[in-house]
Amino acid sequence: MIRVGIVNVTGYTGAELMRILARHPEVKVTAATGRSDAGKRLRQVFPSLRDADRDIIPAIVEDCDVAFLALPAHASAEAAPPLLQTGAKIIDMSADFRLSDLAVYEQWYGTHPTPGLLPKAVYGLPELHRGEIMAGNIIGNPGCYPTASILSLAPALQAGIVKPRLIVDAKSGVSGAGRTLKLESHFSEVDENVTAYGLDGHRHQPEIAQELAIAWQRGGHSGAPSLTFVPHLIPMTRGILATAYADLDGSWTVEQVRDAYKTFYANEPFVRVVDTPPSTKHVWGSNYCFVYPLIDKRTDRLIVVSVIDNLVKGASGQAVQNLNLVCGLPETMGLETLPFYP
Amino acid sequence: MIRVGIVNVTGYTGAELMRILARHPEVKVTAATGRSDAGKRLRQVFPSLRDADRDIIPAIVEDCDVAFLALPAHASAEAAPPLLQTGAKIIDMSADFRLSDLAVYEQWYGTHPTPGLLPKAVYGLPELHRGEIMAGNIIGNPGCYPTASILSLAPALQAGIVKPRLIVDAKSGVSGAGRTLKLESHFSEVDENVTAYGLDGHRHQPEIAQELAIAWQRGGHSGAPSLTFVPHLIPMTRGILATAYADLDGSWTVEQVRDAYKTFYANEPFVRVVDTPPSTKHVWGSNYCFVYPLIDKRTDRLIVVSVIDNLVKGASGQAVQNLNLVCGLPETMGLETLPFYP
Amino acid sequence: MIRVGIVNVTGYTGAELMRILARHPEVKVTAATGRSDAGKRLRQVFPSLRDADRDIIPAIVEDCDVAFLALPAHASAEAAPPLLQTGAKIIDMSADFRLSDLAVYEQWYGTHPTPGLLPKAVYGLPELHRGEIMAGNIIGNPGCYPTASILSLAPALQAGIVKPRLIVDAKSGVSGAGRTLKLESHFSEVDENVTAYGLDGHRHQPEIAQELAIAWQRGGHSGAPSLTFVPHLIPMTRGILATAYADLDGSWTVEQVRDAYKTFYANEPFVRVVDTPPSTKHVWGSNYCFVYPLIDKRTDRLIVVSVIDNLVKGASGQAVQNLNLVCGLPETMGLETLPFYP
Amino acid sequence: MIRVGIVNVTGYTGAELMRILARHPEVKVTAATGRSDAGKRLRQVFPSLRDADRDIIPAIVEDCDVAFLALPAHASAEAAPPLLQTGAKIIDMSADFRLSDLAVYEQWYGTHPTPGLLPKAVYGLPELHRGEIMAGNIIGNPGCYPTASILSLAPALQAGIVKPRLIVDAKSGVSGAGRTLKLESHFSEVDENVTAYGLDGHRHQPEIAQELAIAWQRGGHSGAPSLTFVPHLIPMTRGILATAYADLDGSWTVEQVRDAYKTFYANEPFVRVVDTPPSTKHVWGSNYCFVYPLIDKRTDRLIVVSVIDNLVKGASGQAVQNLNLVCGLPETMGLETLPFYP
Repeated sequence: MIRVGIVNVTGYTGAELMRILARHPEVKVTAATGRSDAGKRLRQVFPSLRDADRDIIPAIVEDCDVAFLALPAHASAEAAPPLLQTGAKIIDMSADFRLSDLAVYEQWYGTHPTPGLLPKAVYGLPELHRGEIMAGNIIGNPGCYPTASILSLAPALQAGIVKPRLIVDAKSGVSGAGRTLKLESHFSEVDENVTAYGLDGHRHQPEIAQELAIAWQRGGHSGAPSLTFVPHLIPMTRGILATAYADLDGSWTVEQVRDAYKTFYANEPFVRVVDTPPSTKHVWGSNYCFVYPLIDKRTDRLIVVSVIDNLVKGASGQAVQNLNLVCGLPETMGLETLPFYP
Repeated sequence: MIRVGIVNVTGYTGAELMRILARHPEVKVTAATGRSDAGKRLRQVFPSLRDADRDIIPAIVEDCDVAFLALPAHASAEAAPPLLQTGAKIIDMSADFRLSDLAVYEQWYGTHPTPGLLPKAVYGLPELHRGEIMAGNIIGNPGCYPTASILSLAPALQAGIVKPRLIVDAKSGVSGAGRTLKLESHFSEVDENVTAYGLDGHRHQPEIAQELAIAWQRGGHSGAPSLTFVPHLIPMTRGILATAYADLDGSWTVEQVRDAYKTFYANEPFVRVVDTPPSTKHVWGSNYCFVYPLIDKRTDRLIVVSVIDNLVKGASGQAVQNLNLVCGLPETMGLETLPFYP
Repeated sequence: MIRVGIVNVTGYTGAELMRILARHPEVKVTAATGRSDAGKRLRQVFPSLRDADRDIIPAIVEDCDVAFLALPAHASAEAAPPLLQTGAKIIDMSADFRLSDLAVYEQWYGTHPTPGLLPKAVYGLPELHRGEIMAGNIIGNPGCYPTASILSLAPALQAGIVKPRLIVDAKSGVSGAGRTLKLESHFSEVDENVTAYGLDGHRHQPEIAQELAIAWQRGGHSGAPSLTFVPHLIPMTRGILATAYADLDGSWTVEQVRDAYKTFYANEPFVRVVDTPPSTKHVWGSNYCFVYPLIDKRTDRLIVVSVIDNLVKGASGQAVQNLNLVCGLPETMGLETLPFYP
Repeated sequence: MIRVGIVNVTGYTGAELMRILARHPEVKVTAATGRSDAGKRLRQVFPSLRDADRDIIPAIVEDCDVAFLALPAHASAEAAPPLLQTGAKIIDMSADFRLSDLAVYEQWYGTHPTPGLLPKAVYGLPELHRGEIMAGNIIGNPGCYPTASILSLAPALQAGIVKPRLIVDAKSGVSGAGRTLKLESHFSEVDENVTAYGLDGHRHQPEIAQELAIAWQRGGHSGAPSLTFVPHLIPMTRGILATAYADLDGSWTVEQVRDAYKTFYANEPFVRVVDTPPSTKHVWGSNYCFVYPLIDKRTDRLIVVSVIDNLVKGASGQAVQNLNLVCGLPETMGLETLPFYP
């Protein structure tokens, strides 16, 4: 059994990790830490996890093989070195190990606590970086918006289907904003309401741009695409739907485009190129990403609609997928649950 | 492998059965039928079930060991005899095999198509009828409101904690009303709204009354409790919360009451007597029922709050629990998923 | 024009007062205060009030004829004396002037800051206290649950229809919990969820009990009814539905009961005895209360379903109704808006 | 008093018309018709309209000054001629009188029943066509998506701020889909879900394109902009948020852009150029449109976010605004309600 620690189990991604890992056949969760809730039992914080109850401890003491860091930016990077020293591999849910360019990180997040670790980190999107993840010690688990956005456009960029001026208009449920109280997540403010936010620049923009540049360059192009990214908050708990727009480069039929997408994702266990417009509820509670590319013939534009569950494929499910890769387990282990509908 | 057929997979309980059974390690779904959707692929109706895709066929032809009937009342009873003749056991999701008294059935549902089968049917609530279920051929799988209501009051009635004048005020998500279109399930009518309904008598009332009478009589009492049952529709998809009220019979402390409940449910794999007020989301997507009894000291009343996911413990999960019992499998097999939160 | 001040316009009831009063033909809002938001413009806090924009000031300095206190308990009572000294009448949205028995107040809220004012205060439910309100200087505007609960049972108690053992099972939208951040109002915790709360005693219980005792005694009875009150939080913003239960005292037909209710509310501008089960959305955004009494013949119980918009008839609309009464204006002035549907 | 008829009061736009007109000081609703509900009282269909109760009649018999047609496409055009013959002016809520080019109409809606009336019809968006509306007899009241989309981009096109390749990504509540039952509006399908639809072409696309071409040409440009329009359904009842994207034409500062918008809407009673990102709930229940233009400096793109209540400014409120214009009344009469928040 692989011994796993969860640092900060008391947020939504921490709790979701515990939900999945408690039923993972090759994992034993040996430690789950909290900050203000340390000293409590897990079920006092999350009654839903009653049958995975345990003490919430202040810090990991026992050795573990893999540690998940479900901490805010900066706190994650600070927590990593001592765990690495014990030989643990790190799967980090924050942004601290996602951006390979230190200057970009510091523009969005301020000073990096452990810049020396950045070059060793791998961006944990298996569909783009499976080999590196399998060999990695520090996995920067992707953000929720980036997962949906990158998976929707990477095939088109790599295949040269579109010009490199991109727009992603994303719609997210509220759980992506976490469990910390804020007016933007207050029920009466969000319910029956939709809001565009991050209009002056959202922290997930550089992460999406970094990976789409990689896809673009893998297709033999130089430079990097430009990207407008506008997230919206909608009145639901889970789910992200990303609608991506880009001008076609040359003449493409929708069949050619779909073929390129199907080829790109041919061996992926969790990505499906679907043939009807997907809804977030089609993947609710699962690790799937459904992707639907089409062409707007009036304007010669590619439109791609993609959906994920932001807490599963957009966070904790993808982290377990990375755990499986890092540990040499079958990639889908513990993630077989089909989506819940309705 | 147990060969299972699902009759009418295209409703919400049918789809939920498929979701669970597709991952059940000892089950092979050999047939899934539909009515107006027969001839389609399952994923055309439920894209969420893409990875359990199959043809929706008009009728079961191949032999199966167990057939789930996810049909409306009357249609279920009519579908049962030919399947029973092939040797299949029946787990019926409708009301056709729940009420042991034919006269009561006919008062609420009209003429019974197969009254001769009624005496052979078992009420499929494992917490009250486990032994009979294990030996049964026709299981009348309980309704969603009855599951929550009976589990909340049976221990108190059997232990003689309360007088036999009961009120159950229940709150349900909308999926309990099914996939058939009706104004009462139209989004704009339900959203931001709460409604009391069934005020002239709801069909689940006699089912609850029947089983609470059994619990009352198992406690050595004669007669049957009276029951006011008022369901309410609230703007969410899944979940039932039942709030039950009854006057205490004699002097009871909350500790004594909780002890009686814990004793009653001591060996139950899916019922938990919790120590803080439960929410429906604590059990979302799981087969659990959380029960919380307390005493209103101002009025010497017992109040019991219970919660279930209406499509799992209130329908398809409980049906799979019954499948496991009927087939001699571990009772929790295929139902280990922890609740999703948030 | 009547000069009106709003103390603490930055909560939900304060904002709702401003929304109504900004269109009231006989009112001029001369001051609107805030605490942490003082110094801002109103539209910075509530963009919806852009066309009623003004400075949020730290305290009322100019004389006003009527001051609304939209403050928490204790803060209200402390704010009242200086305003009373200027000759202003007070309409208080907190609980500070609702409970006539000081001992009861202190049991639920602790020491009262200005107990000497209590005997001068009037409970601001026009349907029970219209005359006193018209002559009053300090109006304790009712709570949201009490408004729905009292209006549902007062006619039955006064007419002797029921025995004095009452249950009110209430369901409320989340805006009743206010704009202050708390985990219980965090979107992801409330959405797709229903919760029973206040099970150890909710602060609105004594308020309901006080007024139902008055109705009981007006009917010539002695003593006071006992009351079990259980509120539930449901995933919507506005609206309260109260389901009340009580055993009939003697033999009553539903027609007799409805006649008693219609007589009781014959001249009320905002209460309607309806003939089909009401939903909260039937009164959304309006000052109406719809009341629906019926008899459960199986158990000889009266059931009454009532609905209000908790921020209008349950708070700010009722406060404006009281303003109209206190100032000798037509009772419905500024409150003519019909409900929004859907 | 102006005598008004509402044809088909039993849909959501019909009911919303009645809600507004019942409180309009210069209007008397003399007739309200229904189809399957003719013969009922209005409150049987909409209990919220209890205090505007009346008979639902099968057809308008009495003369009226203005008739609102709240009918589906085709039925509207068929209902218009006899009403016009009585001298009534027509405000039509369907698409039948919105598209000035018959060929475009027939491409999207099939054969037009009364093509001869098209040249006499005026597109009822006061911000672009106030003068024509005041002189008109047949007003084609705009669709909900078009209202939000046109108001967001017309100023930029007329001022030459952007190049004529436009994207509008719109998010709508479900009431826009009407009261007719369909799976896409079934609560359990929509709740906790977001869906892109109309991807092969939505009927509102040509309407938006027509009006944006007018704005473009008023700015002295030739030709017409191309437009990608993608609507999304989100789990709420009322509200549309449109996010529009277009490349800047030349160098513009955000201040210049905002000045152009403020100039364009300087005298508009219902449009506000706001300085923080708007949410749909900022205008809930009101006739306002809030517009927020900004520049994405990374990509030299204009982004415009606009919000309306789809049933008010997007339908019935705008229709009353047109009534006021057609009848020479103050444009805001009956529409003064401030938005409801929360």
